[in-house]
Amino acid sequence: MDVSRIVLPRTPSSGEPSGYSHHVHGALPGRTRASATPPACRCYNPKRMPVSFPIEKVIGKARSGRLLTPHGEVETPVFMPVGTQASVKGVPQETLEELGAQIILGNTYHLYLRPGIDTVRRMGGLHGFMAWPGAILTDSGGFQVFSLNELRKVTEEGVTFRSHLDGSSHFFSPESAMEAQIGLGADIIMAFDECTEYPADRERVRTSMELTLRWAERSKKYFEEHKQEVPWKDSRQPSAVSPQRKQVPHRASSPVRNDNGEERNEKRNEEPERDTGNWKLETRNSTQSLFGIVQGGMDRELRRESALRTVEIGFPGYAIGGLSVGEPRALTREIVESTLEHLPKDQPRYLMGVGTPEEIVEYASLGVDMMDCVLPTRAARHGLLFTSEGKVSIKQARYAQDEGPLDPGCPCRVCRRYSRAYLRHLYASNEVLAQVLNTIHNLSFYLDTMRRVRHSIQLGEESRFVSGVWSGPKP
Amino acid sequence: MDVSRIVLPRTPSSGEPSGYSHHVHGALPGRTRASATPPACRCYNPKRMPVSFPIEKVIGKARSGRLLTPHGEVETPVFMPVGTQASVKGVPQETLEELGAQIILGNTYHLYLRPGIDTVRRMGGLHGFMAWPGAILTDSGGFQVFSLNELRKVTEEGVTFRSHLDGSSHFFSPESAMEAQIGLGADIIMAFDECTEYPADRERVRTSMELTLRWAERSKKYFEEHKQEVPWKDSRQPSAVSPQRKQVPHRASSPVRNDNGEERNEKRNEEPERDTGNWKLETRNSTQSLFGIVQGGMDRELRRESALRTVEIGFPGYAIGGLSVGEPRALTREIVESTLEHLPKDQPRYLMGVGTPEEIVEYASLGVDMMDCVLPTRAARHGLLFTSEGKVSIKQARYAQDEGPLDPGCPCRVCRRYSRAYLRHLYASNEVLAQVLNTIHNLSFYLDTMRRVRHSIQLGEESRFVSGVWSGPKP
Repeated sequence: MDVSRIVLPRTPSSGEPSGYSHHVHGALPGRTRASATPPACRCYNPKRMPVSFPIEKVIGKARSGRLLTPHGEVETPVFMPVGTQASVKGVPQETLEELGAQIILGNTYHLYLRPGIDTVRRMGGLHGFMAWPGAILTDSGGFQVFSLNELRKVTEEGVTFRSHLDGSSHFFSPESAMEAQIGLGADIIMAFDECTEYPADRERVRTSMELTLRWAERSKKYFEEHKQEVPWKDSRQPSAVSPQRKQVPHRASSPVRNDNGEERNEKRNEEPERDTGNWKLETRNSTQSLFGIVQGGMDRELRRESALRTVEIGFPGYAIGGLSVGEPRALTREIVESTLEHLPKDQPRYLMGVGTPEEIVEYASLGVDMMDCVLPTRAARHGLLFTSEGKVSIKQARYAQDEGPLDPGCPCRVCRRYSRAYLRHLYASNEVLAQVLNTIHNLSFYLDTMRRVRHSIQLGEESRFVSGVWSGPKP
Repeated sequence: MDVSRIVLPRTPSSGEPSGYSHHVHGALPGRTRASATPPACRCYNPKRMPVSFPIEKVIGKARSGRLLTPHGEVETPVFMPVGTQASVKGVPQETLEELGAQIILGNTYHLYLRPGIDTVRRMGGLHGFMAWPGAILTDSGGFQVFSLNELRKVTEEGVTFRSHLDGSSHFFSPESAMEAQIGLGADIIMAFDECTEYPADRERVRTSMELTLRWAERSKKYFEEHKQEVPWKDSRQPSAVSPQRKQVPHRASSPVRNDNGEERNEKRNEEPERDTGNWKLETRNSTQSLFGIVQGGMDRELRRESALRTVEIGFPGYAIGGLSVGEPRALTREIVESTLEHLPKDQPRYLMGVGTPEEIVEYASLGVDMMDCVLPTRAARHGLLFTSEGKVSIKQARYAQDEGPLDPGCPCRVCRRYSRAYLRHLYASNEVLAQVLNTIHNLSFYLDTMRRVRHSIQLGEESRFVSGVWSGPKP
């Protein structure tokens, strides 16, 4: 695949000229919303638009930028670890911070069933509930319900489905999915869509796409009418537990706190010393952002129509949904590439549910800004590890006495400390620590990969970025 | 129980006068073994005695001291977290360091079966294999084999048993158990004993005790003849993975390292900057220490005889085994108290397999220096958490919306960050993070409890130490 070497031009423009006059939100809304309303915005209520997305460098189709959310800044292109049930499986939130994760994903369907929206709402939303001060994105539940197959029934009004936990019957509509996501309080939430199955004939895809467009309108309408109900607590009133209220570090370079027992006790009753000013400024009076989702199956024309009509409805960011549903990878790439052409160049573009390390580099090179996937966490649980030397199936007997680090090129805490032999032993012995360490490494590899992509784009000079650091010379 | 308040005398002696002229090893053997051989030692080869145990304070029967091992210093009384399969279940080694663990325990039976002694030996023993630079103790396998019940057969020569993993047949003798433990390379290893079942009649207890005494002789003989075979690597040749070669911090007060990516890369190819001089000095040319185990069932007379005859064989430390096997707690205490009277006051005393937070405080007050138990880690996996306000069963619905920290009096990273509601959700949702966080907290509680016990003893003035910080005013 020729994307494995992205040749970056020597003198890129310092920013990409926008082909769209709407949705230009260059300033933090909390600071400037009274005075800095973009003039030509078609948003329902532009005064409350809470994400902005300054693009810093553009190299070919790829771009690096900063997604400014009410809970901190996210450097893009970004990979978002998946925390389905308000936990990235096996990894404490402080470790996610250490890895440099700036935004994580939660699944509305799972959290709606357990612990329930009301519980999360009472805790100040997901940020308070799971003690994660950084940015969060939730899906709408649409894809999860789609995955239930025989347990769901779709009508114009919404989707009736049965819980995978106890078989109980539930109903999601665009309105109830928005209500749930407002209660969860993620920084970025998603319109309720129907994920079209694959394969599907053209009429089915069109019908499904039209439904998603109507649902997008309804999602936006409900959101605009209710977005003030987001349960974010005033940051001047820290919760009983007082999670670390701060901007998540942009790199895994911030010092980990001194864990002196006495010092901790002294700090218990007072606000942390660190500068949390920006965070307060951004959060107060701010709201969530609702992103639209483009559907249209594997049909380029329908994708184009879906994109244009979703943009016409108007959202601060757009996702490409309905991919990675069984189609060949070449087709995924084709649809992604063609769909991106019809999305605003100055707004964040989110490709849902991808991919391998190679793929996330590839999609970033095409101009995707945000991606999420369960692959690094799920593969870790099955002993499949991504390294600079290729995939390692740590369960194999060949590693039983391998004293070397998992990945000599990886600076993560697992590779710094433990041998392949030990990781293999943990896996073979069904030790929980296997999942913990494997997941930390795989996430580190994914986050480092995107860090390298951003770095290459930011370099702004001719350089060769090697896809997914899988092979060949390092940049 | 009246032990809940230990009244410490105002002016304790600065050290406890020894009632024994043998086994006085006040200096680090690595530094002084050529010149500082204790004159009256009855040990088989005192020049190689690699632990020493300076006692610093004595309050009543309780004492605080420092167990100096080839892999670092251990402040006593100490609770040793159990890492059965070379992992304290769910907790990375760097987190154990952060918690201030100075010594951990491994189980010979499990490690013998998986990954096998040879594998661990090739990695430089358990320290290298599991990347744990602090002190380690292994049991002899005797108790584990005892736990197999129907799968074992005891003869004078040893024990034939079937693996719980695949039913394969194996044989442990005092000699093979020593061989295995030398291969594992823990700092402290245990004589091969028979753990007498409870209840048992006096003849059975005596027969079993006599067998354990004969096995103790054989264990010591084999150990003395083979202890030079310990696989510790010369610390001047760090392994490929280069685990943190350092003394484990004595308190959870040492700064956690800056995790800057670049800095890590720079450090990759060189020795860490920290002063590892002492550690090298201690490890080089040093060997393991073999502790004896007192048996004798629930019979005070047989316990006395077992203690005296085990001491007569001569070991650098003594364990009390065969307790916590189903007997009432009051009986446990009675046997512990009476047995301790017959053990050398200037040597470490290790009570195996106990106990609750209340119990470990109680036993420390009786003069026990070392304890281990799976309770904090196992209870954590079942959602049972120890706090300064009593036990918390986090699975209960009453915590579903409890925003407070698990234990307001606990400085651990779990209590600093997460709410009871979140911990309850993780448990109810079968998230692996539940086990990870619960275990970190319970271990923190146990280690803090022993820290408080040591602090009370060291204060050396009349103070009231509240058992297990379960209730009442804090010291």
